Amino acid sequence: MNDANMPVLTGIEDGIATVTLNRPRSMNALSEEVLEALQQTWDEIADNRAVKAVILRGAGDHFCAGHNLKEMTLRREDADGGHGYFNDLFAQCSRMMMSIVNLPQPVIAEVQGIATAAGCQLVATCDLAVAAEDARFATSGVNIGLFCSTPMVALSRNVTRKHAMEMLLLGDFVPAARAVETGLVNRVVPRGQLPEATRIMAAQIVGKSPVAIKTGKRAFYQQADMPLAEAYAFAGATMAENMMARDTEAGISAFIAKEPMPDWTGE
Amino acid sequence: MNDANMPVLTGIEDGIATVTLNRPRSMNALSEEVLEALQQTWDEIADNRAVKAVILRGAGDHFCAGHNLKEMTLRREDADGGHGYFNDLFAQCSRMMMSIVNLPQPVIAEVQGIATAAGCQLVATCDLAVAAEDARFATSGVNIGLFCSTPMVALSRNVTRKHAMEMLLLGDFVPAARAVETGLVNRVVPRGQLPEATRIMAAQIVGKSPVAIKTGKRAFYQQADMPLAEAYAFAGATMAENMMARDTEAGISAFIAKEPMPDWTGE
Amino acid sequence: MNDANMPVLTGIEDGIATVTLNRPRSMNALSEEVLEALQQTWDEIADNRAVKAVILRGAGDHFCAGHNLKEMTLRREDADGGHGYFNDLFAQCSRMMMSIVNLPQPVIAEVQGIATAAGCQLVATCDLAVAAEDARFATSGVNIGLFCSTPMVALSRNVTRKHAMEMLLLGDFVPAARAVETGLVNRVVPRGQLPEATRIMAAQIVGKSPVAIKTGKRAFYQQADMPLAEAYAFAGATMAENMMARDTEAGISAFIAKEPMPDWTGE
Repeated sequence: MNDANMPVLTGIEDGIATVTLNRPRSMNALSEEVLEALQQTWDEIADNRAVKAVILRGAGDHFCAGHNLKEMTLRREDADGGHGYFNDLFAQCSRMMMSIVNLPQPVIAEVQGIATAAGCQLVATCDLAVAAEDARFATSGVNIGLFCSTPMVALSRNVTRKHAMEMLLLGDFVPAARAVETGLVNRVVPRGQLPEATRIMAAQIVGKSPVAIKTGKRAFYQQADMPLAEAYAFAGATMAENMMARDTEAGISAFIAKEPMPDWTGE
Repeated sequence: MNDANMPVLTGIEDGIATVTLNRPRSMNALSEEVLEALQQTWDEIADNRAVKAVILRGAGDHFCAGHNLKEMTLRREDADGGHGYFNDLFAQCSRMMMSIVNLPQPVIAEVQGIATAAGCQLVATCDLAVAAEDARFATSGVNIGLFCSTPMVALSRNVTRKHAMEMLLLGDFVPAARAVETGLVNRVVPRGQLPEATRIMAAQIVGKSPVAIKTGKRAFYQQADMPLAEAYAFAGATMAENMMARDTEAGISAFIAKEPMPDWTGE
Repeated sequence: MNDANMPVLTGIEDGIATVTLNRPRSMNALSEEVLEALQQTWDEIADNRAVKAVILRGAGDHFCAGHNLKEMTLRREDADGGHGYFNDLFAQCSRMMMSIVNLPQPVIAEVQGIATAAGCQLVATCDLAVAAEDARFATSGVNIGLFCSTPMVALSRNVTRKHAMEMLLLGDFVPAARAVETGLVNRVVPRGQLPEATRIMAAQIVGKSPVAIKTGKRAFYQQADMPLAEAYAFAGATMAENMMARDTEAGISAFIAKEPMPDWTGE
C-alpha cells in the first residue's frame, strides 16, 4: 500500500505500525501533503485492530524540522495576506496532533537528528519517546520571529514550566541528554541501537491487553484536564468498566492461577 | 487499642501516628477489610489533635501490592458480573485516597519492597515519601489486562507526563533510584535507615505550628485545581487568615525577637 | 531617574532593564515601600518599548527574604487585629507577582544568597532563573507559624508536587544544586559569573523579535490554564496572528534566503 515516494510511509509488522515521515530532503517538514498524509494515517490506524502500537520516525538523518516555511510564505500573496490560510493550517496541524492523543494505540516517537518547532511538538505529543544520543530538540521559531505557540501547548504539558520557557524564549537546541532529564523523552540510546530500542518498547505494548491499553490511554488524557475529585470519579468508573472486559477477566484469572497471560482477544 | 491481628495498626507517639498495613502475607493488598480499616483510621486521625504527622508503612517486606484480586474475582458471580461491586470498590478506594489528601495532618509514605498499582497510588497520594534503596514501584495492572486508571490520577499529578505514561503503558518496575529522579518519592535511604529517616521527617513536621500545617496542606490541594489568578486570590485570603491565629502571632513575635519558637497551642 | 536610596533601582542598557531590590540591610524584604516601588517598576517597564528583557536581582549578599514581618506585626494594633491590612497586603503582593506574569517582556531572576518565602516566590514567578552556586531557597514561613500559601501558588506551578510539598512542609533550605534539579531555576553558575551569565541570557532574548516574545509569553500563561483542545484552538489562532507581523514576515524571509535576521521593528 506504500509507494516509496509517498510523503508518509506506513508498515505494519507484528502489531506495530511504523509510520515514517518521508521527506528527508526537507528534513521531513510538515508540508501540507505531509500533514494530510499523517492525518489520514492516524485515521486509518485508529480503525485498524491489527495495530497495537505505533512508532513515529523520520526518513533520513532527522526526525522533523517543523512546518514548511517556504510553502507558508507563498500564501502571503493571498488577498488577506495569508491570515485565513495560516489559521486553517495551524488548526489542521493541531487536529493532527490531537489525533495522536486520541488514537487508541500508544505512539512512540523514535527521534534521531533534529526535532524542531512542530517536530519537537510531535515528540512532546507522542505518548512515549526514545531518542538517539545525537538527537537535538528546539522550539526555534522564536529565532526567526514566529514563537512556537502550538508546540508550546504540548511542550508545557511535558516538562516543568521553567524548562519549557527556556526552550521557548531562548530557542536553543537541547541535546538528548538534557531532554531525558527534563522528561521530554523517556530514554536515550546510541544511534545504532535506536530502531531496536524503540521496537522493543513497542513490542512490550503489543503484548498487553488492547482493551486495557485503549481504555487507559484515553482515560489518561481525559482525567488530566479534570480537578482531582472529578478525575477520581471518572477513573473509578473507567476501571470498573475495564474489569468487565473478557480479556481482563482472563488476565486476572491467569495471574491468580500463576499461569501465563492468555492470548488477548481485544474484547 | 490495637489487636496484633487487625488489618491496620495505628500507634501514636510523640505526635506521630504510625499507620501500618498489617497483611504481610498478601503483601498488604487493599482487601475490603484493609480499605475499611484504613478509611476508619483516617477518619479517626482527622479528629485527633494529638496527631501532628502520619507515617504510612507496610508490615513485612513490602509496602502494598494494590487491590486484592482474588476477593474481586469472587464477585464475578454477582448477577451483574460484579460491575456494581467493582464500581463501589473503586469509589471506596478513591474516597480513602481522597481522605489522605483531605487529612489535616501531612502523611509520609515509608516504602520498602514493592509498591504496585493502588500501592503505588498510595505513595503518590501521600504528601511526602521516603523509600528504601530496594523499593520498587509499578503501575502493573496493564500487565494483566486492568489498566491502573485510578492510580494514574495520583501518579500523573506527581510526575511528568511521559514518566507517568511509561509506568502506565509498560508496567515495568521502577527502582527507588529512578523514582526519586522523577519525583515520585522525596528521598531514598538504605533499607536499615528507613524507619529512622521517616521518623525524623515526621518529627520535623510535629515541630511546626499545627494551624500553619493544616491551613497550608488544605490550601495546597485546593489551589492546585484553580487557574492562576483565582489561586492567588484564594491563597492571599488563606494567608491573611493564617496571620490571625494566636500561634502565628506568637511565632512571628518570637522570630522577630530572635527567641525560640513558642509551644504551639493549635489555636 | 534613580536615587541611590530608592527601594528599587532600575537601570536600562542595551534593551535590558536591570531591576535591583535595594534594601540589602533587610535582605531586600518586600516591605510596603518595596512592593509599591516594584509594582510601579513593572507598570513602567510594561509600557517601555526600549526594554526587551528584564533582570531581577537583589542588592547586597541576598536576593530577597520575603515579607517584612516587623512592619506587618505593627498592624496587629489595628482595630481588626490587622486582618484587613493583611488581606490587602497579600492581595497587593499577588498583584505585583501577577504583573511579572503579565509583563510583555521576559523576566530573569538572578539569585544569590537567600531567596525565602515571597523571595522564593519571586524566583518561581520569573520566567527564567539563574542562581549562584551559593544561592539557597526556602518557603520557610512554616517554621514560624505562617505557611507560605501565596508562594505555594508559584512554587507548585514550577516543580512537581512532592518537591513543592517538601519545601512547604519542612521549611528547609534547598541549595542551588537541588533547585536546578527540581526545575525551580534553569541554571547554576559560580557566584563570580552570575551577573554575566544572566546578562548573556537576557541579551539572547533582546536579540529576538519583540512581537514574537510578547505574543508567546502572554500565550504561554493563558494556555497553561486551559484544557488541551481549548489550548490548541487558542494557540493556533495566536500563531496565525503572529505570522501577520511585519517582523515575522521579514524574519522568515531572511531565514529562507539564508540571510541574517533583520533589525526587528517591533511591528
